Amino acid sequence: MLSVSKILEDIAAGRDSAEAAITRSRALIDERDGEIQAFEAVSPVYGPIASEGPLAGIAVGVKDIFDSYDMPTTYGSPLYHGYQPRADAPVVAMTRARGAYVIGKTVTTEFAFMKASRTANPHDPAHTPGGSSSGSAAAVAAGMIPAAIGTQTGGSVVRPASFCGVSGFKPSFRLFPSGGMKTFAWTLDTTGFFAASARDVALFAALLCGRDLTADDLDDAPRIGLYRSAVDDQASPDMLAAVAQAADIARASGASIVEIAEPEEIRRGREVHAVIQGYEAAISMAHELAYHADALSPTLRETLEEGRAILPQAYDEARRRARHARKAATRLFDEVDVLLAPSATGVAPRDRDTTGTALFNKVWTLTGVPCVNVPGLTDSAGMPLGVQVIGRFGRDKQALQAANWLETRLAT
Amino acid sequence: MLSVSKILEDIAAGRDSAEAAITRSRALIDERDGEIQAFEAVSPVYGPIASEGPLAGIAVGVKDIFDSYDMPTTYGSPLYHGYQPRADAPVVAMTRARGAYVIGKTVTTEFAFMKASRTANPHDPAHTPGGSSSGSAAAVAAGMIPAAIGTQTGGSVVRPASFCGVSGFKPSFRLFPSGGMKTFAWTLDTTGFFAASARDVALFAALLCGRDLTADDLDDAPRIGLYRSAVDDQASPDMLAAVAQAADIARASGASIVEIAEPEEIRRGREVHAVIQGYEAAISMAHELAYHADALSPTLRETLEEGRAILPQAYDEARRRARHARKAATRLFDEVDVLLAPSATGVAPRDRDTTGTALFNKVWTLTGVPCVNVPGLTDSAGMPLGVQVIGRFGRDKQALQAANWLETRLAT
Repeated sequence: MLSVSKILEDIAAGRDSAEAAITRSRALIDERDGEIQAFEAVSPVYGPIASEGPLAGIAVGVKDIFDSYDMPTTYGSPLYHGYQPRADAPVVAMTRARGAYVIGKTVTTEFAFMKASRTANPHDPAHTPGGSSSGSAAAVAAGMIPAAIGTQTGGSVVRPASFCGVSGFKPSFRLFPSGGMKTFAWTLDTTGFFAASARDVALFAALLCGRDLTADDLDDAPRIGLYRSAVDDQASPDMLAAVAQAADIARASGASIVEIAEPEEIRRGREVHAVIQGYEAAISMAHELAYHADALSPTLRETLEEGRAILPQAYDEARRRARHARKAATRLFDEVDVLLAPSATGVAPRDRDTTGTALFNKVWTLTGVPCVNVPGLTDSAGMPLGVQVIGRFGRDKQALQAANWLETRLAT
Repeated sequence: MLSVSKILEDIAAGRDSAEAAITRSRALIDERDGEIQAFEAVSPVYGPIASEGPLAGIAVGVKDIFDSYDMPTTYGSPLYHGYQPRADAPVVAMTRARGAYVIGKTVTTEFAFMKASRTANPHDPAHTPGGSSSGSAAAVAAGMIPAAIGTQTGGSVVRPASFCGVSGFKPSFRLFPSGGMKTFAWTLDTTGFFAASARDVALFAALLCGRDLTADDLDDAPRIGLYRSAVDDQASPDMLAAVAQAADIARASGASIVEIAEPEEIRRGREVHAVIQGYEAAISMAHELAYHADALSPTLRETLEEGRAILPQAYDEARRRARHARKAATRLFDEVDVLLAPSATGVAPRDRDTTGTALFNKVWTLTGVPCVNVPGLTDSAGMPLGVQVIGRFGRDKQALQAANWLETRLAT
């Protein structure tokens, strides 16, 4: 895979140039994307490539749920075929402002919901890459680009990162702007990032927003809570073994590991995610549902119709439970730095008609806490099994540092 | 002015029809908008008008900061001249889904910021109607339509409502969706409403969202906190007299009135509003600033350039202060039902190049609490002096009830 930090180091040292790095990614897309189908559109060549800004030389894929002024934006739906927004979404404008090069729009599932896209898993094209940020995860995993932008409303960053064996970072809610994306559920939609490693994804995010998020080495091994959730029985034996293996390696490397049982408030939070998502999506997509229901996939249409039937009182009660879950999620970190949990139920399903399930992600999206998929482990067939490092709200740097710490140890 | 509740009652009683009510508003716009200039676009006539849905027969003006699929959307900027979105903003789609008729797009200031628009104050065209929801307030005040949708990021609902002598309701943050509007500051942008009276604006909002927001009569006179803020010395003598008069009338009608001094946390919250707004606006408008700075008004361009220079650390500190202000705002209602305060510094300035100031509104937008402008009082020249009823977060119905209670007593 292409590394953000290596490209920037090489450019800084004069061994590479921004233009050469972007040109290489263009060639890699030409070479590989026919099979992977990670890109919805590739940027036209306008002329010389910027060599200024902290991210100059980084080719970025942007999930096609974000508006871009220079490339059509489909939101993964035939309804928006050929739609050309007038302006970049804020996170896209930020990306360009820092000198990065938006090389293309990456394939999203339909409106970032569940209908599988055409993208293949680079590890084995018979498997799904996960969703909804399918193209962003696959493009990084296939080594075409060093960084990609996605979104997570349920598990749409961490799950495809796990399935594709890359680092995926879902920041604290609202740390990065979600404007200019096609809203699905406004209290859940979270902008996130993909790169080869925790160090790379942290560097990219840090340079993008000007915050101290870099995954510097830790002075001390982290205190890790091995999170035992109410849905662990739905993880595959392989995934449970991967989490146990990661914990063992961390312990052997000096981390303190304590088991943490899921609080009732978090279990209940997981249960109301669908109510909040459904209610908000029915409002966000009210136009499409009213005028173009036939152009929606049956799953999405049913979800929106069910969402439209949710009463405000039921939504308010779900939001109250979400608040309780958020408070409980803060208390989880009283004694530990981060939690360790499965990133998904198992490896990517060998089924291109599904994107998997957000079961292990959605309560962390609901509570808004930072999550990082840590790649490195696989099943016996070599398919990636990601484990998830979860941090306290607003402590994104600590989550990224712990993810980097663990990733380095899993790799050795 | 046209009354939402009277129109709906007349239709229900068979004295009026949805089609006749909409047709009347069309004729009133034809007759009056040449002078007032409240409309950016008027809906084309497509055929028969819906007579189903709880808001059938209500002609609604939608601030031109919201996307509409059937009318161009300018965001008040020449940059978006002729821009035709593909989909309605969620609140617009909701409006149509409830049977209301979106009769036109109302004039907004440039990107809902400070540059004055061409709209005149219906009480005296030499005066500003206020902003940024200039057209929405003026269209209701001029009796052209019974209801209008606006937004408030600083004081853009309550202030023009005060200047134009109509009821303006800024709901609790996120009670109504703000998707599909041109985002300015995502933690501040709040969708709100205008109508002739508190009863009308409450009924419109209630039928729009399916929540119990109607301004039913109170069993007991409200407990009112007469709010003494750190900026009261910037209100005109007329405005201070209007607030005192409203308090006197309320007291004479049985309300308990206690003075409440502004807590330090709220004063500090008011001071950081500009930091949060500026930082977020620079991100939200990054595309326009990067590519079209020359097409922005000098005031907006400077605000965005200053916003771009705000460090994330300063923004985070401002957000911390906003959180403290929110907590303090909750405690304000320990002993009272609502607060009473000026809606603006005074009457609408006799200056069409300004829209006035949000000084008396912005901390309530920041804290997300419901506010209602109560019309009824005027200066000696007959220009409206609105007073503001402020409620506890999430207690929108109580704020609307208290506003209705007060409005009724001011009118007698």
